[in-house]
Amino acid sequence: MKPIVVSSEGPLSQAASAARRVGKKVGFVPTMGALHAGHVSLIEAARAANGFVVVSIFVNPTQFGPNEDFICYPRPLERDLDLCDGVDLVFTPDAATMYPPGFQTLIQVKDLSNILEGASRPGHFQGVATVVLKLFNLVHPNRAYFGQKDAQQVRVIQQMVRDLNVPVEIVVCPTVREPDGLALSSRNQYLDADQRRKATALNQALEKAEEMIREGERNAAVIERAMADHIAATPGAVLDYAVSVDRETLKSASPFRGAVLLALAVKFGATRLIDNRIVEC
Amino acid sequence: MKPIVVSSEGPLSQAASAARRVGKKVGFVPTMGALHAGHVSLIEAARAANGFVVVSIFVNPTQFGPNEDFICYPRPLERDLDLCDGVDLVFTPDAATMYPPGFQTLIQVKDLSNILEGASRPGHFQGVATVVLKLFNLVHPNRAYFGQKDAQQVRVIQQMVRDLNVPVEIVVCPTVREPDGLALSSRNQYLDADQRRKATALNQALEKAEEMIREGERNAAVIERAMADHIAATPGAVLDYAVSVDRETLKSASPFRGAVLLALAVKFGATRLIDNRIVEC
Repeated sequence: MKPIVVSSEGPLSQAASAARRVGKKVGFVPTMGALHAGHVSLIEAARAANGFVVVSIFVNPTQFGPNEDFICYPRPLERDLDLCDGVDLVFTPDAATMYPPGFQTLIQVKDLSNILEGASRPGHFQGVATVVLKLFNLVHPNRAYFGQKDAQQVRVIQQMVRDLNVPVEIVVCPTVREPDGLALSSRNQYLDADQRRKATALNQALEKAEEMIREGERNAAVIERAMADHIAATPGAVLDYAVSVDRETLKSASPFRGAVLLALAVKFGATRLIDNRIVEC
Repeated sequence: MKPIVVSSEGPLSQAASAARRVGKKVGFVPTMGALHAGHVSLIEAARAANGFVVVSIFVNPTQFGPNEDFICYPRPLERDLDLCDGVDLVFTPDAATMYPPGFQTLIQVKDLSNILEGASRPGHFQGVATVVLKLFNLVHPNRAYFGQKDAQQVRVIQQMVRDLNVPVEIVVCPTVREPDGLALSSRNQYLDADQRRKATALNQALEKAEEMIREGERNAAVIERAMADHIAATPGAVLDYAVSVDRETLKSASPFRGAVLLALAVKFGATRLIDNRIVEC
């Protein structure tokens, strides 16, 4: 069944509230399009748990830095809609709908937004938090679905929802990977064949770090050094960061206790990839 | 009928959503307590238009500057509850409920927040916008009521609601005044007898400016000068600002067109008073 596609706010809110009125739970998957199996897993999770499923497709300009890939970010709308099988409604606003003249309100999740991705991409999480809150206010979902692949985004959204008392349950779904371990990302298509082969280095570095922790290593610097060394040994890969941090605060956690987030960002040419895994210890 | 008083978030949200489920509209009046006839007029407006009325009483620390009157701000809870006649539910959270450990999310309505009151009170409107959005998310009112006395606060809230797609109608009620024209404010009680008499200078300056506009004056500088002169001629009154600005943007509007906001802030000793009026021209 093909979803209904709407690009303005009124019909979106009306359809979602009509579903709620007849007792359906509303599941929401916010995306920037260029959907892949990771997004499909979010849609399937939403479909399984809710009577009405909304997907938004919006390449949000405010979460891109001035030198980032906003212009060339892929926008394969027809293909995306084919992947929205079982979705009830797809929301495809344009930027003028989301940010009309005079728009000036921003959400800042302070401590979580300026480190890691936020340090490399100033303003990124401000853009993410603001657009997600707008979408939540339009859809009023009971549950919203995000991928663990964007671990820091998940924490920012969780914290915003908690701090602002937004009545929505945030559901985090596991990272979906290629057979060779590369985490799915809309940006993987930027990689040439050689970069694509080498991009498995991210997952390998995480695997190695997890193994070290399983074997008893508890010193963050040692773990981080091992991940950095693995990336350094990959020709063409340039490390942005490799960290082992507290899962909640995303701050340095050494010696480890509880759940540790291993996270790294690596550039191959102009393409910046991220990956992470959570290790309980 | 005495209202129910709750201080935690769960019972508040549950009571408001129970009212919505039986088809009642929810009217909400957020306050810092120290209620006066201005607040009562908001409550009456909410009562007249909605089946369920919620008042919040919370002296919000994040909207006070470090040298402001947070500590000594009046908190006459019993008297406030007596004035909540006809209110269904009063929400009286403490600061730890509103800002639990780890709280870190802020709303900024950028252009409107740094001028006038925002210039004199850095961070004030960030605190206001954030707490009001939290309260909206807890109460989910159909309508929320604010006094025109705090003209800039009204604009900040309106803009936040528009920008973030918050599904609430903002109702603005006229400023309530003492017989001699002084706008009601919880801070008026800080004035000594002499200051109280002289505090009518704010309303008089606004009256004079309105008269000049009615008589054809369209030069903002001339109008602002007249207001400033009137305050300067009042012994013990120290002008913070006296402006004639566009009602929407709160930016300089000369020559006037459409609706002009005349606004001023004046200190009497440590007490800072504000007042305004809107003139259509």
